[in-house]
Amino acid sequence: MIVVMEKNATEDQIEHIAQRVQQLGLRAHVIRGTERTVVAAIGDKRGGERESLASSPGVSDVVPILAPYKVASREVKPEPTCVSVLGFAAGAGAVGVMAGPCSVESEEQIVTTARAVKQSGATALRGGAFKPRTSPYSFQGMKEDGLKLMALARQETGLAVVTEVMSTEEVELVAKYADVLQIGARNMQNYRLLEAVGGSGKAVLLKRGASATVEEWLLAAEYILNEGNPNVMLCERGIRTFETHTRFTLPLASVPYLHRKTHLPVIVDPSHGTGHSYLVPDMSVAAVAAGADGLIIEVHPSPETAMSDGYQSLDFQQFDDTMQRCAKVAAAIGKHLH
Amino acid sequence: MIVVMEKNATEDQIEHIAQRVQQLGLRAHVIRGTERTVVAAIGDKRGGERESLASSPGVSDVVPILAPYKVASREVKPEPTCVSVLGFAAGAGAVGVMAGPCSVESEEQIVTTARAVKQSGATALRGGAFKPRTSPYSFQGMKEDGLKLMALARQETGLAVVTEVMSTEEVELVAKYADVLQIGARNMQNYRLLEAVGGSGKAVLLKRGASATVEEWLLAAEYILNEGNPNVMLCERGIRTFETHTRFTLPLASVPYLHRKTHLPVIVDPSHGTGHSYLVPDMSVAAVAAGADGLIIEVHPSPETAMSDGYQSLDFQQFDDTMQRCAKVAAAIGKHLH
Amino acid sequence: MIVVMEKNATEDQIEHIAQRVQQLGLRAHVIRGTERTVVAAIGDKRGGERESLASSPGVSDVVPILAPYKVASREVKPEPTCVSVLGFAAGAGAVGVMAGPCSVESEEQIVTTARAVKQSGATALRGGAFKPRTSPYSFQGMKEDGLKLMALARQETGLAVVTEVMSTEEVELVAKYADVLQIGARNMQNYRLLEAVGGSGKAVLLKRGASATVEEWLLAAEYILNEGNPNVMLCERGIRTFETHTRFTLPLASVPYLHRKTHLPVIVDPSHGTGHSYLVPDMSVAAVAAGADGLIIEVHPSPETAMSDGYQSLDFQQFDDTMQRCAKVAAAIGKHLH
Amino acid sequence: MIVVMEKNATEDQIEHIAQRVQQLGLRAHVIRGTERTVVAAIGDKRGGERESLASSPGVSDVVPILAPYKVASREVKPEPTCVSVLGFAAGAGAVGVMAGPCSVESEEQIVTTARAVKQSGATALRGGAFKPRTSPYSFQGMKEDGLKLMALARQETGLAVVTEVMSTEEVELVAKYADVLQIGARNMQNYRLLEAVGGSGKAVLLKRGASATVEEWLLAAEYILNEGNPNVMLCERGIRTFETHTRFTLPLASVPYLHRKTHLPVIVDPSHGTGHSYLVPDMSVAAVAAGADGLIIEVHPSPETAMSDGYQSLDFQQFDDTMQRCAKVAAAIGKHLH
Repeated sequence: MIVVMEKNATEDQIEHIAQRVQQLGLRAHVIRGTERTVVAAIGDKRGGERESLASSPGVSDVVPILAPYKVASREVKPEPTCVSVLGFAAGAGAVGVMAGPCSVESEEQIVTTARAVKQSGATALRGGAFKPRTSPYSFQGMKEDGLKLMALARQETGLAVVTEVMSTEEVELVAKYADVLQIGARNMQNYRLLEAVGGSGKAVLLKRGASATVEEWLLAAEYILNEGNPNVMLCERGIRTFETHTRFTLPLASVPYLHRKTHLPVIVDPSHGTGHSYLVPDMSVAAVAAGADGLIIEVHPSPETAMSDGYQSLDFQQFDDTMQRCAKVAAAIGKHLH
Repeated sequence: MIVVMEKNATEDQIEHIAQRVQQLGLRAHVIRGTERTVVAAIGDKRGGERESLASSPGVSDVVPILAPYKVASREVKPEPTCVSVLGFAAGAGAVGVMAGPCSVESEEQIVTTARAVKQSGATALRGGAFKPRTSPYSFQGMKEDGLKLMALARQETGLAVVTEVMSTEEVELVAKYADVLQIGARNMQNYRLLEAVGGSGKAVLLKRGASATVEEWLLAAEYILNEGNPNVMLCERGIRTFETHTRFTLPLASVPYLHRKTHLPVIVDPSHGTGHSYLVPDMSVAAVAAGADGLIIEVHPSPETAMSDGYQSLDFQQFDDTMQRCAKVAAAIGKHLH
Repeated sequence: MIVVMEKNATEDQIEHIAQRVQQLGLRAHVIRGTERTVVAAIGDKRGGERESLASSPGVSDVVPILAPYKVASREVKPEPTCVSVLGFAAGAGAVGVMAGPCSVESEEQIVTTARAVKQSGATALRGGAFKPRTSPYSFQGMKEDGLKLMALARQETGLAVVTEVMSTEEVELVAKYADVLQIGARNMQNYRLLEAVGGSGKAVLLKRGASATVEEWLLAAEYILNEGNPNVMLCERGIRTFETHTRFTLPLASVPYLHRKTHLPVIVDPSHGTGHSYLVPDMSVAAVAAGADGLIIEVHPSPETAMSDGYQSLDFQQFDDTMQRCAKVAAAIGKHLH
Repeated sequence: MIVVMEKNATEDQIEHIAQRVQQLGLRAHVIRGTERTVVAAIGDKRGGERESLASSPGVSDVVPILAPYKVASREVKPEPTCVSVLGFAAGAGAVGVMAGPCSVESEEQIVTTARAVKQSGATALRGGAFKPRTSPYSFQGMKEDGLKLMALARQETGLAVVTEVMSTEEVELVAKYADVLQIGARNMQNYRLLEAVGGSGKAVLLKRGASATVEEWLLAAEYILNEGNPNVMLCERGIRTFETHTRFTLPLASVPYLHRKTHLPVIVDPSHGTGHSYLVPDMSVAAVAAGADGLIIEVHPSPETAMSDGYQSLDFQQFDDTMQRCAKVAAAIGKHLH
């Protein structure tokens, strides 16, 4: 890191910082500019304790140089990671599509949907059984019954099952039925939960928090990876900005940016990322064109009667059209839907 | 809610919406404007199922009219709630101050700090034992040992103990030692945890999520209140915006806004809200002037050697000066520090 | 618009609002809900004077129903507008590409670049002569000399010339040399300038302000259209959010959203939208896939010696590769680069 | 600045950067860390041309060290600037209050308001004659007639006149009548206009752009200061964030932050900063407590019939109450309303 001193910092203050840097186990290198002195601290520590220097007398600013994540970094593992479960694969050229309803509502709903999305080319089935809802008055999901129905749909179709786990005490139960554990945006920094799914042995889909920086997101992945679980997929689902015409703002540039910084596959969620079904098809195609390793799309047999998220769900025909366009664009850039 | 139809919506589509509204248990009232038809849906349902109308054919937009929260609403309980624990009180005219280190680090650190902040006028001691850290490589807190030291400091000073609980399985343990359970910003929408602290019988300090809207925040409070726990304090600690000269952006207008919408007391955290110790005193005073019912301030015997958040912690002298200024401003607007 | 009354609004207050609505030339329609009364105001006024109702006693909120723009609206003109100048065309199926340096620096630089980008498929040449710079200490552009060099490059290549105009008093001069007048993001709400380019007879490229809502942007277009100039292109160039790994956040969902709301063509600027040359190719392709009617891309013979924006400029080879990928993706979705 | 190299940067790339730094007239200092090499570039250049280094091969990031502004900097002029015009003063301990309607509407309106706000303690009269309006269909102001009425109100009351100028060609006209020229938020980066008011000899109130960083704002001030005009006041009027319960988000921490970075006085606009008249009083008081050097508040004889911004305007009684509270809080922190 670089410690930038105030313009009028005294020699004693500069000397004090150099000593503090050494106490932290780093080498100090003092550079005197025409207007400012800076102290470069050399070494590979990443712990937050270094931030304390920012409060030392005479210090103007502390600028980190090293990325704070390690295991997730492309510098550590240059080749891309491919996460594959049953017929689903994402990363290293494969573009995997997860599709299904926001909430599991009934056997007929989930099995019909599973068959339809498989027919259109999806290789994983998404569906919510434990639902984190902003309002306590909203439908909270079918819980274990929902998980059983998803497992049944897998049996019928062979699709991998992706579903959210909301709490440490539910990890074991959800892992019994699901192939991919989803960490929702609200729980991206629920560190106990990250540790728990890290230890579950299941692949994890880690959604980006609505106001998480890319660094915070990769550090959340690092919590999972550090438990010995290498099968982590990052899911860009939009960030919160001043825009109101979309539910969230979907910053697709995070896809090529992440590909430069990490080896983990990047999935895009155009359903939450836009919040309007009429925007989902174009943004699905754009995500594939931006290099996404996968998509997760909300699909429902009858969006206007859905118990949740109907306004952003595609019906079967819309999903099928979207998949055909995605397949063409994937082919145009030398990739294939998996 | 108001369902706004597309300009070219057909009579069939309008009729269909009117029927859907009635199926949802609401009364439909069709209003034909010069350019648009709108369907007013009358009744007091607040469940998310209504959102599905937004995906019906011919619908342009759905505008909610009722606030989604009930129990937290000032319409339901017009008189302000005062939360009081030991010598601490916040709300209904009382301005309570919680102060202490980001992390509990040792007996000497926490007891010395407790004595100092009490001397300056604080009535509660904050301190972290279970620490949610962005990086897995940062100090994670002293855990139960930290809780014990806080309890010891309470014994020495009589200050109420405020500390964060990160996970449902830790609620019982933390509640054994603490007087106020803090829900951190990252966990504001961890609904299982909200339910658990709702059932703990302890007062709760609910920090605002960094990108939570006020409605989402009040709905999170509603999860706690609905478990039968009325002692909920809201803590404004800043939101994430494009500003980089502060760690977060502290929107003090949320204080008078919340006072209009809810009876719950509103605490302000100028430490996280600014992220720089040199901004904390002025923003503490401003928060009191804006009508805050309390403050939570990070104080450390030696900020530059703190194991976390040193850059935003006050030392004892700075805290004492800040308290004196806050007391004067509180008096100027007819309130008192408690 | 819908005026939502407070829960405890009196009959007098409701009656007062109904009268105020009528005074504004609208019809009032009172709807009594189970918890709230709302007053629907029927008519097609769009002036801001209606906002004053929000301050009347007993009023909780005022919700607009009509979009505030008219001439730009797709409701008024359902068929898409195609803007074409010399060999360049954007809209109604054509995808036009503008490319060139941030700043015109010399005859050799601009002519060489013009030839190279034409060779790769661009049909318009961008280049800055009057440069709006955040810092007064940065290069401010070659001014009229730069315009002359662009005109020369047009003569050599036949490319249409696109350049920014910063001030009303420069409109005439810039219009003498340029084919398309660009309004920069900083000037999106410089209403005198919008009126001036509206009266210039030249096509206009209207960049989105960094924190402009889509409605504000369309209203800015409306200022130009209302001067009788139908040749307005909207340019999405990214918005300011908390993200720091990109210079701005490029919200491609605005492309399909705008196509639904307006007939005007939508151009995407992946150079400013990302701020890093290594992100530009993927985001160019993604923009085409999202349905953009055109691209504007910074290209420089030697980005590392550019006098401005080198960090986000492509060199000739990178631009050529990008164009080839864009052409393939355009073909895959049934469009063509123009 | 500090040029951070990629982990795998070659010796040739490092050498190339060191040479480029020297070509830019700076001294290069290479520091080899355990994981990264950085090149410190020493010297006081602030021009944007340095940014081009970010595109050189092997470069990961370029971190600026020096603030980009000079004349506005507190490092250059440590003592605070006080701007005073007629009876108004702001800065160096004085807290000046500007008050008046959003738009000048009639002689009676403006003169009555001038008398009322003077009575309550304001020393300057604000009022809009040239109005920048988001919609072309909104009231655009009385233009020169409005200026004449403000001058008349000054004659009647002695209050200094503050009004917005929107365009270079209107600077001379507006300067004929006004004492303080206001640059609106939309024009904060209209550099020709900044230069024009810089040369006008009048004091300037420079509003912050809704998405301007503090650095961009100070650089805009620098454009004015560099024309030889030292009488610049910065006006914090709120930034655009995801919050929707306020019109903008008013980040009061910018007040103490600016006091640390610049000698210029900082005015706060709680009217635009909140957008709701019921939030203005508390935020006015909070702004004074945060250390603001002045306030600018919208006041109208009858807000609900105002031609613009009625929803955020105080009536005379509300303004008088607000001023009394502000005066008490100013006294409590050792300052006085001027």
